[in-house]
Amino acid sequence: MSKRKRYILDEEQIPRQWYNIQADMVNKPMPPLHPETRQPLRPEDLYPVFARELCHQELNQTDAWIDIPDDVREKYKYYRSTPLVRAYGLEEALGTPAHIYFKNESVSPIGSHKINSALPQAYYCKQEGVTNVTTETGAGQWGAALSYAAKVYGLEAAVYQVKISYEQKPYRRSVMQVFGAQVTPSPSMSTRAGKDILTVRPNYQGSLGTAISEAIELARMTPNCKYTLGSVLSHVTLHQTVIGLEAEKQMEMAGEYPDIVIACFGGGSNFGGLAFPFMRHNIKDGKTTRFIAAEPESCPKLTRGKFRYDFGDEAGYTPLLPMFTLGHNFSPANIHAGGLRYHGAGVIVSQLLMDGLMEAVDIPQLESFDAGVLFARTEGIIPAPESCHAIAATVREALKCKETGEKKVILFNLSGHGLIDMASYDQYNSGNLANYSISDQEIERNLEALDK
Amino acid sequence: MSKRKRYILDEEQIPRQWYNIQADMVNKPMPPLHPETRQPLRPEDLYPVFARELCHQELNQTDAWIDIPDDVREKYKYYRSTPLVRAYGLEEALGTPAHIYFKNESVSPIGSHKINSALPQAYYCKQEGVTNVTTETGAGQWGAALSYAAKVYGLEAAVYQVKISYEQKPYRRSVMQVFGAQVTPSPSMSTRAGKDILTVRPNYQGSLGTAISEAIELARMTPNCKYTLGSVLSHVTLHQTVIGLEAEKQMEMAGEYPDIVIACFGGGSNFGGLAFPFMRHNIKDGKTTRFIAAEPESCPKLTRGKFRYDFGDEAGYTPLLPMFTLGHNFSPANIHAGGLRYHGAGVIVSQLLMDGLMEAVDIPQLESFDAGVLFARTEGIIPAPESCHAIAATVREALKCKETGEKKVILFNLSGHGLIDMASYDQYNSGNLANYSISDQEIERNLEALDK
Repeated sequence: MSKRKRYILDEEQIPRQWYNIQADMVNKPMPPLHPETRQPLRPEDLYPVFARELCHQELNQTDAWIDIPDDVREKYKYYRSTPLVRAYGLEEALGTPAHIYFKNESVSPIGSHKINSALPQAYYCKQEGVTNVTTETGAGQWGAALSYAAKVYGLEAAVYQVKISYEQKPYRRSVMQVFGAQVTPSPSMSTRAGKDILTVRPNYQGSLGTAISEAIELARMTPNCKYTLGSVLSHVTLHQTVIGLEAEKQMEMAGEYPDIVIACFGGGSNFGGLAFPFMRHNIKDGKTTRFIAAEPESCPKLTRGKFRYDFGDEAGYTPLLPMFTLGHNFSPANIHAGGLRYHGAGVIVSQLLMDGLMEAVDIPQLESFDAGVLFARTEGIIPAPESCHAIAATVREALKCKETGEKKVILFNLSGHGLIDMASYDQYNSGNLANYSISDQEIERNLEALDK
Repeated sequence: MSKRKRYILDEEQIPRQWYNIQADMVNKPMPPLHPETRQPLRPEDLYPVFARELCHQELNQTDAWIDIPDDVREKYKYYRSTPLVRAYGLEEALGTPAHIYFKNESVSPIGSHKINSALPQAYYCKQEGVTNVTTETGAGQWGAALSYAAKVYGLEAAVYQVKISYEQKPYRRSVMQVFGAQVTPSPSMSTRAGKDILTVRPNYQGSLGTAISEAIELARMTPNCKYTLGSVLSHVTLHQTVIGLEAEKQMEMAGEYPDIVIACFGGGSNFGGLAFPFMRHNIKDGKTTRFIAAEPESCPKLTRGKFRYDFGDEAGYTPLLPMFTLGHNFSPANIHAGGLRYHGAGVIVSQLLMDGLMEAVDIPQLESFDAGVLFARTEGIIPAPESCHAIAATVREALKCKETGEKKVILFNLSGHGLIDMASYDQYNSGNLANYSISDQEIERNLEALDK
């Protein structure tokens, strides 16, 4: 009768290194290109924007293991290891023979996995004498994490919050302010990038792409200030591998190994963070685990976007990245999963998808909330709208197992809780939530605009 | 350099019994009295309102240990043990030689300790064939917990939420609704108790006392329906002792024993839950730990109330309880710590305070938020406004240690996080938060009214 529910590692077992999958990839990601010269990017090219150590991590294709600084690991101990949880409640409700596990990143202080990269980014900035950091935030999860990490390392933080999120999720702004950050809705009139888009579209509700442009611009204009990013880039995903490395040990405690690994997909950091440590066993040890990225139907860069060089931001300040994209000028529908409203995928994930090492599915908004409410009622945790996409993809796979009778082991990432997203659930409960799809023509038109 | 930060128990070590301090008290609490006959209450007298097992637990003064039902313990495993955390960050910020630990109940699915009693209360109701449960909620923490527990055990839940909280904390309502509960702001026109007070005071913002009356009335009027309570009563505190019993084992892991144990105080359940397992060693083993209940300055029943028989609710539906009270007709100021806006203290705590086995302090609202923000910035967790009172009392004691140089071990309960209370922090950040005190005359006048 008594079944083990949660697996938690001793502090000694918290990883001491992050895993850099680039070193093990047979086909390495194509190089990012300098936005002006169009030459392959060197770490030095990124120095004006990011802490130097992060520039080197970003382009490192040789070292599979990168040491986690002791001081960062000490701060990880404030909330890590996060629990690996067997979702008995969800399994029972679905009547599936599958074994469902989730890695519960929602128990971090800020309520999501974002803090795993915010801490090292702030740490390296501090080490290099930086005094101010800027960033953008979509759902507000990354902004909250960076605000906290900045406070931990005595840095001033300025955050551009995507306007729709600023309005839908006022509590996220409050959280950032409690940690002492300056928060500005984006697009704003405080940057050229913001002014430019507001001139053309005065009522624009913002996107991650625009907010990134604003934050980069502020960092460039401010002495002793660096920009930080919460997803997409390879060094961010690197830091997030602490999730998968822990999960690997915890699955071992549970005596199982995942047949399927699932995470929601915005830029790729929570997905890669969970998936890559397991994927290395596909690459090196002949394992055959399936890896599924769950993206929103309204922002389908992996399932319906195109692989090409594109900018990471709306204004074109970033390097050109080889990635699956809907076009950097794509403005996604106002779905509640603000963290997934991004036009492109990280370069590593894009290459892995090209090479068939992973899959992607797109989830309609209503299906994501159906799954989220089911999860809340069976596991007790109200998931973030982003995480609801991972749960929906998990439900799909678990129901397939129900049909076939297969006892597959499914592991998904509960990237965050939704307690600050309750307005979204209100909309769902009152029947006012819609699905947003996008036509092939619209995608095509948007991508064609890139070539002009 | 590497210092142990968090202590987590293996699932096997989650307690199998709750601790009933009534059995070990030298001076037992005086008996509750039947509201009509004024005779000592028998368990049967409570049957119309509560599940039977709970009625017996309420009045049990002989059994020190009560078995936790297996099924409830299985559900505890969804989030327990909660971590015991060494607050290195807070210690450093205060420059205190004290060792500060906190029990982090905020990581429960619903974000507070309330779920510890919601699960067994719903379980016993289900066992006894009940189909519907009612309750009141102040801050919304209890209502959310009961809504979840009701869903777990397949019960319908109706919650009366104190009107000021319903308005200040709309997300709590949403949380309850996600779990499928019916939520009504109190006072409402749906009960006689609600109508009566609205007739006299049309703009009344509500109190726990009034909401309790409404929920009891609904339970009495509804077939197969029981009332549940989130604090004050002895059986609720009994269930919460899982906190202190875990903390005892975890302090042992840390190789320390608390000199001071602190918790915020509304009705007494999180306080008793943490304190009583340690207090038994004062009673039985000669330990000399100090126990401090931290109540709000605006609702000072322990520090300035009177010990006497009084009702637990505004309308006078409950038994007469021997307790420290400000009078059941007391309407507390609109402070943000909604869970502490209650006129009386549980009968066990009241007796212990009479007997000098514990202490109480009152905390001004601004001091509580000062402490809460300091805690957030040093430990990363934004505390519930209620829990801020415990932190403020902890800061006071830690600063005393700084003066004297004593290395005292302080343990406090982080009863919940404040992520749904961000509107309160907004008020604080914008300088719009005030202290509310209360004059001796006002207290006197209110208590005199009881005798009329």
